[in-house]
Amino acid sequence: MDFDIQRARRDTPGAHGVAHLDNAGAALPPRQVTEAVVDHLRREAEVGGYEAAAVAADRIDGTYAAVARLLGCAQDEVALVENATRAWDMAFYALPLRPGDRILTARAEYGSNVIAFLQVAARTGAVVEVVDDDEHGQLSVADLCRRLHDGGGRVGLIAMTHVPTHGGLVNPAEEVGAVARGAGVPFLLDACQSVGQLSVDVERIGCDLLSATGRKFLRGPRGTGFLYVRRALLERLDPPFLDLHAATLTAPDRYEVRPDARRFENWESDVAARIGLGVAVDYALEWGLEAIEARVTALAETLRERLGAVDGVRVHDQGARRCGIVTFTVEGVPCEKVQQVLRERGVRTTVSRARSAQLDMPRRGLTELVRASVHYYNTEDELDRLVAALPASGALG
Amino acid sequence: MDFDIQRARRDTPGAHGVAHLDNAGAALPPRQVTEAVVDHLRREAEVGGYEAAAVAADRIDGTYAAVARLLGCAQDEVALVENATRAWDMAFYALPLRPGDRILTARAEYGSNVIAFLQVAARTGAVVEVVDDDEHGQLSVADLCRRLHDGGGRVGLIAMTHVPTHGGLVNPAEEVGAVARGAGVPFLLDACQSVGQLSVDVERIGCDLLSATGRKFLRGPRGTGFLYVRRALLERLDPPFLDLHAATLTAPDRYEVRPDARRFENWESDVAARIGLGVAVDYALEWGLEAIEARVTALAETLRERLGAVDGVRVHDQGARRCGIVTFTVEGVPCEKVQQVLRERGVRTTVSRARSAQLDMPRRGLTELVRASVHYYNTEDELDRLVAALPASGALG
Repeated sequence: MDFDIQRARRDTPGAHGVAHLDNAGAALPPRQVTEAVVDHLRREAEVGGYEAAAVAADRIDGTYAAVARLLGCAQDEVALVENATRAWDMAFYALPLRPGDRILTARAEYGSNVIAFLQVAARTGAVVEVVDDDEHGQLSVADLCRRLHDGGGRVGLIAMTHVPTHGGLVNPAEEVGAVARGAGVPFLLDACQSVGQLSVDVERIGCDLLSATGRKFLRGPRGTGFLYVRRALLERLDPPFLDLHAATLTAPDRYEVRPDARRFENWESDVAARIGLGVAVDYALEWGLEAIEARVTALAETLRERLGAVDGVRVHDQGARRCGIVTFTVEGVPCEKVQQVLRERGVRTTVSRARSAQLDMPRRGLTELVRASVHYYNTEDELDRLVAALPASGALG
Repeated sequence: MDFDIQRARRDTPGAHGVAHLDNAGAALPPRQVTEAVVDHLRREAEVGGYEAAAVAADRIDGTYAAVARLLGCAQDEVALVENATRAWDMAFYALPLRPGDRILTARAEYGSNVIAFLQVAARTGAVVEVVDDDEHGQLSVADLCRRLHDGGGRVGLIAMTHVPTHGGLVNPAEEVGAVARGAGVPFLLDACQSVGQLSVDVERIGCDLLSATGRKFLRGPRGTGFLYVRRALLERLDPPFLDLHAATLTAPDRYEVRPDARRFENWESDVAARIGLGVAVDYALEWGLEAIEARVTALAETLRERLGAVDGVRVHDQGARRCGIVTFTVEGVPCEKVQQVLRERGVRTTVSRARSAQLDMPRRGLTELVRASVHYYNTEDELDRLVAALPASGALG
């Protein structure tokens, strides 16, 4: 794949200093995104927020169109919301769950989602079940099938994190989608860490609901996220909140909910950030998600190899298929210390802690991991800088 | 009151072209706000979103402190959220309501809130009651008292919009607060249109919950809002959504909700906009809310007088006390046409429609109103421009 790294880096003001390997936290935006946001903010200051939005109406519509192209869905299946958490919330909390309904999830599920499962279980009487991992450490499709057909009660939802925050694992979303569709169970995919680094198509995957963020691998602004809702599911969901954008009062005591996915939005939004999100998605589509995936995956695999060759360093990524997130530990050195040493030497990583993956990390004997997450604008030279900058194992500061 | 209008206008890039009289829609931000937001966005592009947030940690904390000073509450009673609607939602949908519980509200309640009342009534069996207006067109405190003590069942909530979107009315929040406190009923004040133009103090008012936005009279960025939650009420509320910012997983099947109002937030936010909100609040506090209120109220009263003197123009604002929002109609000219003519002549207003005030406008025989909303940076000259630019009554374009 011929990837023009020089152009990618020219477009990325932040790529020229520290090696930014925290793309799973928040990626560096290309200048096109920042300038689009800043331009709109300045226009708002000149003509007011509402007139600026009216002038930019096509660009705002363009963000829906871009997200629809990105995910392979229709525009009326897209809601633009404040972030991935609120996107996921608007879907999850909208599901009608009854006492005894089972929520099936994966070991590597994101900690926030687990808290929400427990809250809704307490409210509704639904129960949470964690599907076993297979030998690769990913969700076991066989165990999922078994649970769907074990006669143990209605399964109300399959909810899975596509790429967990704390490792390179890519859960088998397409297989889960096929199984969910076969069983007629709604499938909610948390794609917060996969959209932007992997090719994610809702038809290919077969998910009914998908949540994602702008700021991570999509390289968009903070404060942006989106939700995909399959049209067939829309009427079965009760939006957790309604306002006069999501519904219309047709009489003093009656309202109608709008017929598209925007029923999960509310009237007010950060218009500048939304415009920036559209620019970010279009920018990713220009590179092509398959090309991005190939490069990100290859860079991460290279990093794993180089880390694996260092004495005392252990790579912890699981999964038959792996992505741009690389997690490791240095024997005898606390992760925070590793992160700090790397930072002082010009390499930006982060630390994943068990609280983000309470069903998974403790069980694997892990309390923390150093996370280095690559993007296509990173270079092999930056990977070498990371490896060279590592503190020696046992080198407690 | 000695108000340095020249300085206010120098700080406001948008004040030098069109007369901006849509401050109840979105006010013009001072340059200090825009520059703070833009600076942070550029820093994010340089060093990444998370490192930029770490560098700006004091400024983010400063936003909580500023909002607390503005409202006269403690910092741990403040949640920063995406907008006023979501702030109001996080409070309203958190209230434990039982079948038969009564929600008391006012005629001039915001349309979005009415839709939410109906949704929750259908979910919980609660009932919605509209308190009568008094002779000024504001909520009748006498009727409220009567309903609280009529033996008609438990009142679960008093929810009132402080300043409606469609008129100059200021509802008697302090009187309602005293009555609510006396009756031991939670009082949720939608202060979306009052914070920033009026002096709003939660102790003086006696509300338990208050929602507001950044973009209107506070002159902050879009995509910002906040919620005040009185400490005594906190434990009685079940946050509609939880994530790992709002709660902590203490075991695979147990979580603890955080002890402060940030339980109504989620982890991710538009940090740049939050910083801008803090700057906007501090900027308002520098002018002083009482000084702002005096100037805004006086300008609006002047505008009402001048409009009232024009043949065929009718001012529709109600209330014993009135604020910076002025609504009017021109006989025989559709409001949209009035707005358009004004806009062509350099005056920016908007149109309020019945859907925003379904319990009030139809009852008053109104389907639409032209809304001109003044701020302290507006001038009497701009008010004259509006009056001079009006189409003649009957002048259908």
